[in-house]
Amino acid sequence: MSAVDEHHQVVDRLAGKIIGIIGGTGPQGRGLARRFADSGLQVVIGSRSADRAEAAAAELGSSVRGATNEDCAETADIVLVTVPWEGHRSQVEALAKELAGKVVVDCVNPLAFDKMGPFAPSVPEGSAAEQAQMLLADATVVAAFHHLSAVVLLDDEVASLDADVMVVGDDREATNLVQDLAGRIAGCRGVYAGRLRNAGQVEALTANLIAINKRYKAHASLRVTDI
Amino acid sequence: MSAVDEHHQVVDRLAGKIIGIIGGTGPQGRGLARRFADSGLQVVIGSRSADRAEAAAAELGSSVRGATNEDCAETADIVLVTVPWEGHRSQVEALAKELAGKVVVDCVNPLAFDKMGPFAPSVPEGSAAEQAQMLLADATVVAAFHHLSAVVLLDDEVASLDADVMVVGDDREATNLVQDLAGRIAGCRGVYAGRLRNAGQVEALTANLIAINKRYKAHASLRVTDI
Repeated sequence: MSAVDEHHQVVDRLAGKIIGIIGGTGPQGRGLARRFADSGLQVVIGSRSADRAEAAAAELGSSVRGATNEDCAETADIVLVTVPWEGHRSQVEALAKELAGKVVVDCVNPLAFDKMGPFAPSVPEGSAAEQAQMLLADATVVAAFHHLSAVVLLDDEVASLDADVMVVGDDREATNLVQDLAGRIAGCRGVYAGRLRNAGQVEALTANLIAINKRYKAHASLRVTDI
Repeated sequence: MSAVDEHHQVVDRLAGKIIGIIGGTGPQGRGLARRFADSGLQVVIGSRSADRAEAAAAELGSSVRGATNEDCAETADIVLVTVPWEGHRSQVEALAKELAGKVVVDCVNPLAFDKMGPFAPSVPEGSAAEQAQMLLADATVVAAFHHLSAVVLLDDEVASLDADVMVVGDDREATNLVQDLAGRIAGCRGVYAGRLRNAGQVEALTANLIAINKRYKAHASLRVTDI
């Protein structure tokens, strides 16, 4: 048994938990919803429009429901945030009441583009995840799921991903839970990768993966070796 | 043939090239010197003290020589910088004349530590590599070799590494050359991973690898998947 898998054996931390995905109608949100649902989890995707969320959920199968972002945050036990960076601050701030007491998984990559390609803009709080934690004093924020390709997540032909998920956060119980959640995606491992103050470079590295994808015409992800 | 290997077939860009390693008596420098020498390359390791460089070189075998940092920079065709972050600015600045016209490979990880472990300090220029490029207007700076374990590089029992090297830079000829250099380390691939302005997060990610190493008692590196 590898060191990564070891803690999975103790107990199913995800039993009965509902997974919510704020901004879940985008490619990343739908891709994650689909893989979590495939693993038997109950998933609610949220959108500003309940209609749009329900339409996207219907395409993803019977264990995925659609709701407003507010209802999604209220209903779910673990709430992923997959909104565009531009809307991150306002959308997270607006859900502070619903997210109180919950594990919030920030999956957002602050990225900007110009004629030379992608780059990581400066984030005053250090990272999207640290910004979320500052806005959500009563929630436990974990950063994860930055390096998975939405195209691959949504591809019916891909039964199993070749990717690890770096899980970054300060609360051991919460990072363990999110590692287990990552492990529910076929082929993935959730790897603890440091404290929340080290989230910025994990988020920003997505700019490098985009450059790799362009050069090699790939959907690159990362594996952590020797664990 | 993978997309990564394809450009290696055209020509041996490293034929006859001498590899210099500034600050080469530290673990990272010695580890890289040892693997490059194993692949048949001529290597010069530099130190402030020629005696110390010669003593370290003697332990690494007959194709490694020791010299002062100035002589190393002067002699070599491709010059790696593996000095501690604290001495980076002053040591790079002092070698500007010797490094003019050369490919300079910045391998430095700006890191700081406190009681909560490692973190990536803010670097005004964005990264060690961009700082080097600003100090070396007449050289071509590439960032690479951040995520290899010195312990593994120096381990006689490890014949082949399980690691890719992210190569970041703005000059295609220089990044191709450094990719080839990374490919000389048994088991490694040199993977183009974006422009120099995206070096900061590659450097900073070493803080996460240190956290991974601590949690899993490992010497973690990264593989890029789907290429």
